Amino acid sequence: MSKHPKIAVFGGGSWATAIVKMLCENLDEVGWYLRSQSAIDYIKENEHNPNYLSSAEFDVNKLLLSSDINETVSYADILIFAIPSAFIKTELDLITVDFSSKIIFSAIKGIIPESGLIVGEHFNQKLNIPFSNIGVISGPCHAEEVAMERLSYLTISCRDLDKAELMSNYLSSHYIKTKTSDDIIGIEYAAMLKNIFAIAAGIAHGLGYGDNFQAVLMSNSIREMKRFIKKRHKMKRNINNSAYLGDLLVTGYSIFSRNRMFGNMIGKGYTVKSAMMEMSMVAEGYYASKSAYLLNEENPANTPIINAVYAILYQNKNPKKIFKKLTELVD
Amino acid sequence: MSKHPKIAVFGGGSWATAIVKMLCENLDEVGWYLRSQSAIDYIKENEHNPNYLSSAEFDVNKLLLSSDINETVSYADILIFAIPSAFIKTELDLITVDFSSKIIFSAIKGIIPESGLIVGEHFNQKLNIPFSNIGVISGPCHAEEVAMERLSYLTISCRDLDKAELMSNYLSSHYIKTKTSDDIIGIEYAAMLKNIFAIAAGIAHGLGYGDNFQAVLMSNSIREMKRFIKKRHKMKRNINNSAYLGDLLVTGYSIFSRNRMFGNMIGKGYTVKSAMMEMSMVAEGYYASKSAYLLNEENPANTPIINAVYAILYQNKNPKKIFKKLTELVD
Repeated sequence: MSKHPKIAVFGGGSWATAIVKMLCENLDEVGWYLRSQSAIDYIKENEHNPNYLSSAEFDVNKLLLSSDINETVSYADILIFAIPSAFIKTELDLITVDFSSKIIFSAIKGIIPESGLIVGEHFNQKLNIPFSNIGVISGPCHAEEVAMERLSYLTISCRDLDKAELMSNYLSSHYIKTKTSDDIIGIEYAAMLKNIFAIAAGIAHGLGYGDNFQAVLMSNSIREMKRFIKKRHKMKRNINNSAYLGDLLVTGYSIFSRNRMFGNMIGKGYTVKSAMMEMSMVAEGYYASKSAYLLNEENPANTPIINAVYAILYQNKNPKKIFKKLTELVD
Repeated sequence: MSKHPKIAVFGGGSWATAIVKMLCENLDEVGWYLRSQSAIDYIKENEHNPNYLSSAEFDVNKLLLSSDINETVSYADILIFAIPSAFIKTELDLITVDFSSKIIFSAIKGIIPESGLIVGEHFNQKLNIPFSNIGVISGPCHAEEVAMERLSYLTISCRDLDKAELMSNYLSSHYIKTKTSDDIIGIEYAAMLKNIFAIAAGIAHGLGYGDNFQAVLMSNSIREMKRFIKKRHKMKRNINNSAYLGDLLVTGYSIFSRNRMFGNMIGKGYTVKSAMMEMSMVAEGYYASKSAYLLNEENPANTPIINAVYAILYQNKNPKKIFKKLTELVD
């Protein structure tokens, strides 16, 4: 890798846009792959993303925009993927150039449905990237607040801490503070699980449970997260660090969270299908709850909240009854 | 103690009123001391508290109301105190009858300013009640949601777990679930510290920090709470249980919390005095931050958030500057 590695971001959503903005604070050139050529044309002309985070303005001279994923992969030494997990496989399949020696950072929350793997494991097992070249960028961080340059903290993880440090330096600025970690597996699972717990929080709200119960639910969620992650990848970690508990709270307590909103509709009586249609998008926690449920069957941790969400979303169980049972299982 | 001990609640505020309501679900007779005779007359006539939690209705035939604290102390075997910590000493000083053999439960959050002790310690050290006869009732629990009969969870702690169990049974109902604990010291400190962290959350909000920072602040708050309590009373406890983390979250994330509201005004530029006058009441976290700061000087834990709140409230330091420094100390 050269002294000044080239960096590119893959994705056109709000989180991808936020990461490009962070990088532009420190770099003179940032590669940016967006699937949509019309979005690229719009950015070039209007200096902001037409669809997401439109308040984030760019110096377009710094951007190497492309709708050809192979072009952007070839350009960069470090690839940051920020494409929703439900669509990442489709995009990766488009890559024909060899990228096995590149450094991969994932800013994706969730499990890749096709492989049932978290992103780091997918890159490692399916694409032969060594774990020393795989990193994760995680919050707690609403992209919208990055656009407003409100102080936010990121945790950058990689088993090779030098690479985590390198990425930290590229992302840090007057409104972004970073810390590093070597727990990429645990942090990825946390990012995925928090969306399930946010759905649970939404369902509870939709069913009429109040703030007292929400606090109990969140307190049980972090304990459940700890148990689940420990079963998957045992190592010393403080589950109350920002990348785990902070990330759970920013999602679980945000009325803007799509996962919480989705749960809220389910709690209010929408079917899964009608809630999805109404939102015209799919909440990531929907996929995550299935993946987590299935993963947990192998070597089960006690996961009453995940089980409840799974039963409601995938087994057509009555939310009111399932939550009534859940209230006996939390404390 | 008889097979059917008599129970009385001391206090006229919303939390006292909520506890009387819970007890009335299970008992035929509940003693209730309120300082104000006119409030008592009002309750007798209108079946609800005139000043607090007026939506909670009572079967007044069950209530043994009195504005004579000695009368109520003499009546009961189990005394539940739910008077704000800033005023409890004044009330206790009115008691002339011997109550050293009674069981005391504290539903008070905070430190008794005159002694600098948490309530359990005060009853033990100043009033010679053995710890086996001292218990604590804690949330996460907004009294308002009890009035609405929204599902809430309480933790009842006592070193004599039989007494914790006894009180649990008196408080449990279709909307109240309980668990027991023997960590009365840790739980009391948690209840006190959460108010300081809620003030910090309010200050951050008032200064314009967003949800991303709030999540980091709460994640750091629970770690700080763990460190602080461990220094005061080391024992095995899961700080993520509802009585600690849940209680922190229900206060820190509630826009209705007086402590958060107080902090918010400070963050927006009010002086401490003008914020207090504007609220026409004193937030408990105001006293707690001084007590916690002084306590921590003896055998210090790392407490950047408590120190920041103390500096702002008691040393007249600039909130913006102090929080700017604080952002470097949290992660």
